This record gives sequence, structure tokens and C-alpha cells, in this order.
Amino acid sequence: MAAASSPPPEVPMELHVANRVKLVESLRQHLSLSSRPLHGFVFLQGGEEKNRYCTDHVELFRQESYFAFLFGVREPGFYGAIDIATGNSILFAPRLSEEYAVWLGEIKPLTYFKDRYMVSMAFYTDEIVKVLHEQCQQSEQPLLFLLHGLNTDSNLFSKPAEFEGIEKFEKDLGTLHPILTECRVLKTDTELAVIQFANDISSEAHVEIWTAAGSVVGGLHRRVEVSGGRDVVSGSGGGGYEESKSRYEGVSAGNSVLHYGHAAAPNERTLQDGDMALLDMGAEFNFYGSDITCSFPVNGKFTSEQRLIYNAVLNAHNAVISSMKPGVSWVDMHILAEKTVLEALKQGGLLVGDVDNMMIERLGAVFMPHGLGHFLGIDTHDPGGYLKVITVEPGCYFIDVLLVPAMESSRTSKFLKSEEISKFRGFGGVRIESDVYVTSNGCVNMTKCPREVHDIEAVMAGAPWPIKKTSIHFEARES
Amino acid sequence: MAAASSPPPEVPMELHVANRVKLVESLRQHLSLSSRPLHGFVFLQGGEEKNRYCTDHVELFRQESYFAFLFGVREPGFYGAIDIATGNSILFAPRLSEEYAVWLGEIKPLTYFKDRYMVSMAFYTDEIVKVLHEQCQQSEQPLLFLLHGLNTDSNLFSKPAEFEGIEKFEKDLGTLHPILTECRVLKTDTELAVIQFANDISSEAHVEIWTAAGSVVGGLHRRVEVSGGRDVVSGSGGGGYEESKSRYEGVSAGNSVLHYGHAAAPNERTLQDGDMALLDMGAEFNFYGSDITCSFPVNGKFTSEQRLIYNAVLNAHNAVISSMKPGVSWVDMHILAEKTVLEALKQGGLLVGDVDNMMIERLGAVFMPHGLGHFLGIDTHDPGGYLKVITVEPGCYFIDVLLVPAMESSRTSKFLKSEEISKFRGFGGVRIESDVYVTSNGCVNMTKCPREVHDIEAVMAGAPWPIKKTSIHFEARES
Repeated sequence: MAAASSPPPEVPMELHVANRVKLVESLRQHLSLSSRPLHGFVFLQGGEEKNRYCTDHVELFRQESYFAFLFGVREPGFYGAIDIATGNSILFAPRLSEEYAVWLGEIKPLTYFKDRYMVSMAFYTDEIVKVLHEQCQQSEQPLLFLLHGLNTDSNLFSKPAEFEGIEKFEKDLGTLHPILTECRVLKTDTELAVIQFANDISSEAHVEIWTAAGSVVGGLHRRVEVSGGRDVVSGSGGGGYEESKSRYEGVSAGNSVLHYGHAAAPNERTLQDGDMALLDMGAEFNFYGSDITCSFPVNGKFTSEQRLIYNAVLNAHNAVISSMKPGVSWVDMHILAEKTVLEALKQGGLLVGDVDNMMIERLGAVFMPHGLGHFLGIDTHDPGGYLKVITVEPGCYFIDVLLVPAMESSRTSKFLKSEEISKFRGFGGVRIESDVYVTSNGCVNMTKCPREVHDIEAVMAGAPWPIKKTSIHFEARES
Repeated sequence: MAAASSPPPEVPMELHVANRVKLVESLRQHLSLSSRPLHGFVFLQGGEEKNRYCTDHVELFRQESYFAFLFGVREPGFYGAIDIATGNSILFAPRLSEEYAVWLGEIKPLTYFKDRYMVSMAFYTDEIVKVLHEQCQQSEQPLLFLLHGLNTDSNLFSKPAEFEGIEKFEKDLGTLHPILTECRVLKTDTELAVIQFANDISSEAHVEIWTAAGSVVGGLHRRVEVSGGRDVVSGSGGGGYEESKSRYEGVSAGNSVLHYGHAAAPNERTLQDGDMALLDMGAEFNFYGSDITCSFPVNGKFTSEQRLIYNAVLNAHNAVISSMKPGVSWVDMHILAEKTVLEALKQGGLLVGDVDNMMIERLGAVFMPHGLGHFLGIDTHDPGGYLKVITVEPGCYFIDVLLVPAMESSRTSKFLKSEEISKFRGFGGVRIESDVYVTSNGCVNMTKCPREVHDIEAVMAGAPWPIKKTSIHFEARES
């Protein structure tokens, strides 16, 4: 309970100031290279609060990620501008009614937002047209760089800002998105510290859940229930953190699907002695996330089958992390992970034959049908094209819709010892996921859960887990 | 941990069958009275899964409430029809891709949905036009009764179903909404049992949080952090319940706003010795909710000021519950609550003068600026016009934006002893909210939290709270 039992550190808003500076520098460089004038406004619309269908139930608000990156604003209904010529930043806050003060609390003055978010100026959203025309000395139609681009994970487009009077501006929809996306990939020291803190509280939460599950050991056979990941982290370790919530559903009990706990497959099964559980979850802190997967036996003791599959995945996880450094290809890392898993399955008697030949026939994807990892930052699946903070999450699953065709195919059936493999039907899967930070000569694992079989068994039997506490004291230095 | 430590009861889907029967009967009666033919389909669109902005983060899915009432379907992307002539019910499920099976689990066949949700038939959503035309023997253009109407709490309209080919149907937008809304108000025995279960786990969760907060007592001064209500219930008492989540934000620490923990005012304040906390939260079970507010001193002991305000509100809460029965006017109940609070404030030396005169000058609304309660069911603020399950939630708050004008007004200043009242500036507020069920000769309080000052202090000091466990074993009987 180290991180959870003391108040979370205060995150300095200089973090977002530095993000804005970084963007303005990149954008100016890009405009110069294209011989375009260095003026106009970066202009973003923040997220809005949403009702659940037609009811007065307001959904939990989470700021839009690009807006959060640049401004750190946690309130809904804002707009933000950055003047490319001067670097000045302007926030536009919604004008709230007097009734709001009775129901939802004190209405904060514009100076509060200006000071808290360290912007140059703050106005109301109904003043956007007037203010930006006053600020712009270049032309009659000020130029707005709006955010418009594809998120390649979701295939959805970000929504360019909309407001009354937008027709009084020139618009550029193509320039901002790739440049801002690139800015989000490379993390500053302060951003890394925030992600480290999110990892610390999430690592603690994972271990706490094992301990709760571990009380099955010793014949007590208390029924252990683990609810959807969304609740688990917050309930266990995240109390009091404003942005603390896990973002992945993640409990598997004997299942072999990759994501769990969604509407069509709720986490309603009571864990039974002998089950293997998989929790994929991570807390968020000041918008920055963590994403951690642990697999463990709910009764606290690995069976030999569980140990075999677990160690196959752990070997892949460790092999990748020891090999990662600048210049190493991610495709090579994926191949390394698949080969490591296949080797272990061969040693365990599930596979037979040459592992390189198995790789040629893509047998790795039968047992690990997903990517090795993804960028991490303000979104769990952060956008971008340059390596900085990334998840490493090899897995090994026994999924019927993949195994059955592989066992029937003449190209792959020869590798598969069907009698041995049939023992693992219904086993489910194991995944181990850590968040790592690539340095100049290697990488640092930010995730601090016990990973070795004997450590997991010890912690579940009651041994303390010495999470090395990260001492976070933010300073206003930025890379 | 009574309810939380054993698996939740299985809710019989006969609950939703009965809801459909009730609707068809009401609708037929309505059509007969208007001399309209008894055919056509009630046709509703269920909720869809939503992404967070442009990312691949999928928000936690919650079924749309009218659809949940009629069909009990927990999966997204469905449509449902009820044939008014025959009473037959039809579900339309989305057709899922093979990739879904790898990532999100087994694709369930149509027979699964037909059996689980006890409907007459199940098809895919791309078969809506064909199936409904086949089912309809009356006319070339089958008639659809679509859901369209205003939610008076939110001022939002429910969304009528939309699908490809809807132009091949006649549409009625006006008939269904008021009739279906009325059906949701009167609860069956099974619905009441579900709401009772939600109340039981929520009552437990409230008491568990007090106990955690209570460890401040005795000089230990452990910092207690209570996060947003959304997480608290699930983390504390709701683990394992598929639909378990609280729906109100609700922690106040010395604040006097009515709703808490939203984006603009997160629950980030560390509770201090001497603070009064207010938690407004309730779990949901099989879509049906509970809504409970408790107010308690975080250090486990009421000061004399806290006791005064708390007992004023408790007296109002108890007076209303003892007076409620069929035929009693809700306006009279509101007046009773206000008068009870004002009497107590007068006895406590904060007010002076005749309470009836204070009522004429609307002084009650200065201290309790909200309604006495609301209907409860599938939405926290359930729609409808006939009393059945309702919250009773009197309160007393010291809100500057209301108190200052009252102290300055010549009509009200004479009642307010400003020196005494000034001691309560910054005190915040107290609210006590229970969910009650109106019977033929009185009402039953479904909420089982300790309410008396001495009970709260005892439980916070470690005494067990004997929650009388409701033994829920559902039967397929419906009123």
C-alpha cells in the first residue's frame, strides 16, 4: 500500500507547458521547411461531458487525449489555442450558470484556470472569435491549425474543433495531426515520472488482488470473486487518485480470449481452485497510463502445466526486455518472443520438430495471435512512430478457433502433438505485460510486479513484496 | 460482507418476460380505447458500444434502460421487436466477425440469445426488414411503434430505432413512450427483489467505507482517502456483480455542494480529522439500481454541531418515511421534511421565529435546495408518474450562494441568527437518503445502513452491523 496510502504527488503543470513548447518548435520547423509563414493558431476543442442515452446520468468525464497533452485541463467544455508566432497559449472556459454553484460547486474565475494551467490568457468560449481576431495581427482571416487525422488503432478520425463563428477563420486540417502525434511519442522526464507513478500504484494493485485470491490456499476454499478490471484497480490501490482507473477489462478464469470483462462476457464466473487468472489492467495518473498484465494461479500454487506455459511466456518477456535498445527492430523482437514460446512448448512436449520450420509455417501466431506490444502514454494505445515508452506483452493461449485449423492443416499438423495439446484445451492462456522505457543503451522496466513463479507463490502465501518505491519529486526541468 | 462474499443470485429472465407482457397489455388497452387496430410491432434499438474520442479505448457498455427493461440484454448492438397481435418477441443480434472470437471470446449462436432472454425468435440485425415483413400478415407496410419522448430530468429525447430499410415501414412515434414509461414505474415482485439486492450490497459497501475511515480514531491519524463514488462501491462491496457500479459521485469533505467527484471538482482532498463526509452512491444489479446517501464524521465521533445538523436531517428522513402511504401527497412530504429541519435548526439556536412564517418565506429551500426524492428503477432517476419505489433524501446544507442573499433579504434575515450560523460556514452539509417501497398501508425502507448517531459511532468503532440479510430466491412468479 506504499503509493496508495499516502496522497499522490502534485503533478507540475510545467509538464504541459513543455508539451506546448515542444509542439510550437516542431510546427515552426515544419512550416519553415515548407516556406510557410510562422503564424496562425493551433486550435483544439476539449472533450464534452456526455449523458447516458436520454437520461440525466452523466458519464464519468475523461479529457480528450490531445487536449490533455497540451493543456492538462481536467474540466469538460474547454477550447485551447496556441499562437504560433508568439507561443502564447489561451484557454477558453465554458460560462457556467448560477445554478451550477448550488449543485456542483464554486464557479471558478478565469484567473483560476489561467494560473492552474499556466496559460498566457483565459477567456470564455463565447469570446473565441473576438479574442483570436484581436490576437492576430497578420491577416483579416486568422489561420487555425485544426486536429484532423486517423487513429490507426481504432480507424476513427479525431474531431476538428467546432464553434460558432468558425467560418470567420482560415482552416488548415492537414498539418497539425502528424506533428502533434509525433510530439506525444517522445516522453519528457516529467511525463516518465508520471507514468512511473501510475505503474507503481498499478503494480501494488495487482499484488493486492493476488493476495485476496490467495486466501483460497490451505483448504479454506473461500470463493474469490474478482470483478471487471475497471473496478479492481481503483478499489484496490487507486483510492484517492483523481485520474486513477484501469482501462482494460481483464480477468480470465479458464478462458482463452484476449480481452475480458466486456458486456458480452462479463467477469461473473466465480474463480475455482485450480483456475489460472489473467488480469490486464493499469491505473491512469494525470491522464498518463500504465498497462500491466499478470497471470497467476488463483489458489496460489502453479500446477506443472501452468508452470510450463507461464515460464514459456516469462522467458519470452525477459528475452525481449534484455534485447531491447535503440536500433533493434521491433519485428525481430516479435520473432524472438514467438521462438522463445515455441522452444518452451517443444521442451514441454507439446510440439515436435524444428522451431525455425514452425516459424516459417507461422505456428507462433497460433499460440500468440497478437502483437508484442504498443506505445503507451495518454492513451493506452498511444499513437506515433518512434520508440520511447512501450509495452512488452508476450502470451501463449490455447484458442480452439486457431488450434483446430492448425491441427487439421497438412503444413502445421506435423508439429503439434495433439494428445499432449488436448490436455490444455480449456486451459486458457497466459500473458505477461510490462511497461518499459527505452534508454540509450537498453531499457528500463517500469512495472514492479513479482514475475518469477517462486516470487508469485511466496507473495500469495503472505510474503511481503518489496516494491522499490520510486521517489517522485517533480521538478520543473524538462528534456 | 454478507452479500459480497457469496455469488450473486441468478436473476430469472422471466422478469423481462413479465415486463413485455405488461407492455403489450397496456398498449392493447390503449389502442382499443382509441379504436385502433391491435397490430404492429413495438420496435426498440439497444445501446451501442462507444469509443473514447478517436481512440480504440472502448467505454464500459451499459444497456439503454428501456431496452434493458423489456429484454434484459446485456450485449451491445441489438434490436428487439414485440408483435402486438401475438405477443411474440424477437431479438436481432449483430453478426460478429471471426476475428471477434480470437479477441473477445466465443461467438454465441442465435439459439443462445433466444434461450437466455426467453424470446420467441432470434435473428441477425441484417434480417430485420425481411423478418418483420414475414411476421406481419396485416398490411404491406408493417407498423412500428418507435420510442420517442422527452426525459424530463435531462431534457433529452430518447432516440427512436434506426436501421437500413426503415422506410419500408409505417411509423408511430407518439404512442409508445408514455405507455412504456408508465410500465417501468410499477414494480413487480421480482424487480423489487433485484432492487433489494442492490440495496443490500450498497448498504454493506457504505458501512465498509465508514470502517475504513474510522481507523482515524484513536490518534492513529492514518490518512483516509475515499475516491469517487463510481469506484468505491464496486471496490468495496460489489466485486463480482456484473452490473455492479455506483452511479452517483458522492464524497464531500467539508463542502456544501450537492453532487461531488465530477471532473471539475474531483475527490482529491484528503479527509482530515473533524471532517464530515457525505457519500451518495449505490450499486446496480441486473440494470436495477439503488441510490443511498450516508453522512458521517470521518473520525468516527460526531461533534455537537455535526450531531445537531445530522439529527435535524434524520428526523426529517424518519418523519417522511413514517408518513408515506398511498394517498399521501408528495408535496406534503416535502413540506414535512423542510419544517422538520427548520424546527431542529430553531431548537439548535440557528433560527428564531415562527416556523410557519419561515415556510411562507421559503427558508426551507435555503437549507435544502433540492427535491425530497425521485423514482428509482433502471435509471437512478427513473421516469414515470405513479409512486412505487422512491428515494427519500432530505438534507441540510450551508451554501454561501444561498445563505448570503437570505441573510441580506429583509423578508428572511429576521429568522437567521447570523452569529450562530456563521459557525457553520464551511461545515458543508448532511444528506440522508434511503430507497423505500410503498405498500398498501405504509412503506418499507429497503436501505439497511445504520442511521442513528450512536449506531454510526458504534460501527465506526468496530461493532458489527447486523445487516438483516434478505434471502433472495427468485421464483418465476410475477404480479
